[in-house]
Amino acid sequence: MVEARVRVIYGDTDQMGVVYYANYFRYFELARSEYFRARGGSYRDFERGGHFLPVVEASCNYRGAARYDDLLVIRTEISELRRASLTFAYELRRQGEEEVLCTGKTVHACVGDNGKPVRIPKQLASLLQPVPQEG
Amino acid sequence: MVEARVRVIYGDTDQMGVVYYANYFRYFELARSEYFRARGGSYRDFERGGHFLPVVEASCNYRGAARYDDLLVIRTEISELRRASLTFAYELRRQGEEEVLCTGKTVHACVGDNGKPVRIPKQLASLLQPVPQEG
Amino acid sequence: MVEARVRVIYGDTDQMGVVYYANYFRYFELARSEYFRARGGSYRDFERGGHFLPVVEASCNYRGAARYDDLLVIRTEISELRRASLTFAYELRRQGEEEVLCTGKTVHACVGDNGKPVRIPKQLASLLQPVPQEG
Amino acid sequence: MVEARVRVIYGDTDQMGVVYYANYFRYFELARSEYFRARGGSYRDFERGGHFLPVVEASCNYRGAARYDDLLVIRTEISELRRASLTFAYELRRQGEEEVLCTGKTVHACVGDNGKPVRIPKQLASLLQPVPQEG
Repeated sequence: MVEARVRVIYGDTDQMGVVYYANYFRYFELARSEYFRARGGSYRDFERGGHFLPVVEASCNYRGAARYDDLLVIRTEISELRRASLTFAYELRRQGEEEVLCTGKTVHACVGDNGKPVRIPKQLASLLQPVPQEG
Repeated sequence: MVEARVRVIYGDTDQMGVVYYANYFRYFELARSEYFRARGGSYRDFERGGHFLPVVEASCNYRGAARYDDLLVIRTEISELRRASLTFAYELRRQGEEEVLCTGKTVHACVGDNGKPVRIPKQLASLLQPVPQEG
Repeated sequence: MVEARVRVIYGDTDQMGVVYYANYFRYFELARSEYFRARGGSYRDFERGGHFLPVVEASCNYRGAARYDDLLVIRTEISELRRASLTFAYELRRQGEEEVLCTGKTVHACVGDNGKPVRIPKQLASLLQPVPQEG
Repeated sequence: MVEARVRVIYGDTDQMGVVYYANYFRYFELARSEYFRARGGSYRDFERGGHFLPVVEASCNYRGAARYDDLLVIRTEISELRRASLTFAYELRRQGEEEVLCTGKTVHACVGDNGKPVRIPKQLASLLQPVPQEG
């Protein structure tokens, strides 16, 4: 499990005084990018190798509200790793609090330069393999 | 079923040359707002009456890619109307094309000024009631 | 002068209950894209011809606040047309109101495929030439 | 001078492969919020005291392009502090590089709960006073 942190800015909130529902998906993207980095890789480099992981499904369950200036912690893990796709799962909290504000999931296909599905490269698969507790 | 239209701007795209995955949820919001308007109401006025419909779940399935300058059509309907919650379902296409680029769903609780769940007001329920084909 | 219209969504607002200051620049982009279309062209096609108009300067003066569900009208004109650059000027109002909510300006360089400045193509220059009142 | 850092996500880029021009204003907002924090305050708390600093002017000069996954450093200072307004100036670079990618400025009015201009509270003014080099 890997943790990413993000500070909520004004631009993330809406007139209800809470983070706009679509913006949690931006936080999820940041979180999975940090996931790669924490494992010693980088999604940017992965793309340079000619592979891409476009999102094919995304979902979020909203339980509580993140607010302006909150420091958020997004815990991320690979919940499923298949031949040509993988799933990230997310839990979002305020720093120092136990309450889960939302949970989310994104499913990604692995595709090549031409947009066709391809097997996840071995190097990536081993990078992403669940490892014994390191959070 | 109600249709809303939106033109994709540069700011909606990402470096893959397609609409960023989180931004479809912005289009969905526009679409449900147009849904209210098409039924003779307005979500703004509904809020002024002291009721709110915060999103409690959101999901999207991405099949094709919307691109810069595309004119998109989002077909929206209420797929479920319950005592204190409702679900919007969305289908997004390019204007004049049959291919569905993505489908989505948002589940909304009905809450009062104090944030507590309340029964959906009759006036709204009848506004949102499925009606014989008008799309 | 060309007019573009945009409906303010929740996602454009912030917790002050008004449109977030950066989002007016999104509206400006929509407006200049409509400017091309109103003149019979399309910025997308222009790019396909191997020319680009990246923003080199942008500014906005905020006088009043646009709010959720407002239908905004952005009046756009070319305020300066030079050899290798041009300037768009914007005025934003609520539909049917005279009060200007903000004014803005974006300066664009004309560059080729390689990112180097080039002369604005004749075809574009004539497209963008100020014309007798048509707004 | 205070430095803030931000990692560019996919959602910040556009189809040109660079950060979308409006999104630099989001980075500026993050930077001025960090400015308050670095001085021992918080803009959130300032607002709770019934004062607000809405943006009345914003501008940006784009010289180079920030890209996906770049770690950006935004140097921020108060360039002008007046009775009822103040100006933030920003310089944005890639971490570890000298090249300035863009510079920007935001002018803020100080207003009270009722939206009317008021004198900047002493406590804030002293917080924001330029101090001997600490960047």
